Amino acid sequence: MKAVDKLLNKNYQKKFICVGLDTDIEKIPSCMKSSENPVIDFNKKIIESTIEDTAAYKINFAFYEKDGVDGTKSLRKTLSFIPSDILIIADAKRGDIGNTSKMYARSVFEYFKFDAVTLNPLMGKDSIEPFLEYEDKLSFILALTSNKSADDFQKLKLESGIFLYQHIIKKINEWNLHANCGVVFGATNITELRENIISFYSLPVLLPGVGAQGGSLEDVVSLFKAAGKKIFLINVSRALLYKSGKEDFADKASEELQSLNKKIRAILS
Amino acid sequence: MKAVDKLLNKNYQKKFICVGLDTDIEKIPSCMKSSENPVIDFNKKIIESTIEDTAAYKINFAFYEKDGVDGTKSLRKTLSFIPSDILIIADAKRGDIGNTSKMYARSVFEYFKFDAVTLNPLMGKDSIEPFLEYEDKLSFILALTSNKSADDFQKLKLESGIFLYQHIIKKINEWNLHANCGVVFGATNITELRENIISFYSLPVLLPGVGAQGGSLEDVVSLFKAAGKKIFLINVSRALLYKSGKEDFADKASEELQSLNKKIRAILS
Repeated sequence: MKAVDKLLNKNYQKKFICVGLDTDIEKIPSCMKSSENPVIDFNKKIIESTIEDTAAYKINFAFYEKDGVDGTKSLRKTLSFIPSDILIIADAKRGDIGNTSKMYARSVFEYFKFDAVTLNPLMGKDSIEPFLEYEDKLSFILALTSNKSADDFQKLKLESGIFLYQHIIKKINEWNLHANCGVVFGATNITELRENIISFYSLPVLLPGVGAQGGSLEDVVSLFKAAGKKIFLINVSRALLYKSGKEDFADKASEELQSLNKKIRAILS
Repeated sequence: MKAVDKLLNKNYQKKFICVGLDTDIEKIPSCMKSSENPVIDFNKKIIESTIEDTAAYKINFAFYEKDGVDGTKSLRKTLSFIPSDILIIADAKRGDIGNTSKMYARSVFEYFKFDAVTLNPLMGKDSIEPFLEYEDKLSFILALTSNKSADDFQKLKLESGIFLYQHIIKKINEWNLHANCGVVFGATNITELRENIISFYSLPVLLPGVGAQGGSLEDVVSLFKAAGKKIFLINVSRALLYKSGKEDFADKASEELQSLNKKIRAILS
């Protein structure tokens, strides 16, 4: 199934929350730490308890890479728990010269078999193209990120009168020949989201920054409703994974996800 | 030893070439392909034949990540061949929100024990800081890259009248409180290098783009000589690794490296 269709199916079922598996051994409940592989077992339980209600899963590579060979194994094992009809995003923020991006694309799409990836566009079109050659996959490209220092460069005003992140959105639309581009837009930038939501056109939007980072779910969903747009994913990681620090962590994650879904549906209805 | 001192020692010995280990199984000589692990064995031979003459090694993560668990093992094994007095750069172009960059920094500096890393600054200061907390390491931050599409964003003119890459260089200088920042500047941008070399101040400069990408070694070295700057690394990957496609590949790589060193010394003397 094409990556975008997996997303559309879930969005059609009014599922818009993406569960972010930023699994940190130091934050998982102590009851899991005696398990042989706490990260894998924690992820398995989180996936089992959220699978019916999530729109997608996003795996943050950094949290696995920090454990090298073992982390790579954990990442791969985690993917095996997710059924093929659910979109899985490699949150890797890759981007390099052409021959190198080609290798990163092989890693993400062929070795790990992810449906989608997050990319950093600073190096321009030829750093993104090797990913876009995979027409059935989705590439979510950073436009405006959720962190405070997004101001440093992304919000710089260009000589042309627009901001750098607006120019990036324009370019992403140009690169979207196979309808396999998406955009990453931090939910913490609600004013900018309001002013630019129209410029996304048909691009699916991945919104990090709700929850631990302070973005408002209600504000984001209201804007998408007002704009008549229905292809988006709101990522929640820490606020869901670590809702409870006890044995009931998986149940609490599931309850939190259902509660978020309920809030979204109330706004959209 | 501090990363910057490893670099200074080699530069003092008039060694300025960094051997880039972008090892591609499809490009290594056929005589190596029957070996149990061609990538590891190829790297070992290349390292043995270049160790006396190189200033540093740069490992391009993409070429190892594409093989997942096995690639991570190859990367680690390759590092074991390099003695501790030689600077080893993780060419990973990482950069993410703070808590995620912290994990990437742990991967590169603690798990793999690299001396240095390449970083993508698009997400701003808080995406770079977790790396800079490792005061003995070196972080080479992208300013202007060697690829054609560097034009797309890095060469955009800002409202303030300077180009984005110039603003990035300014910020890198501000972030350099522990003297552990460096800058990546593509050797293919010789005009921009001439005009901006003075703005690097004390930042070590990593220059990709010589060789297969078309940058001129002579032009680059002449500019550093004229500017009176002596902390730089010119990366050469493909033009050295695949100089010969036969059994003599390691000898030919060594000869090529010595020939490049000779050219550089002739210009500098």
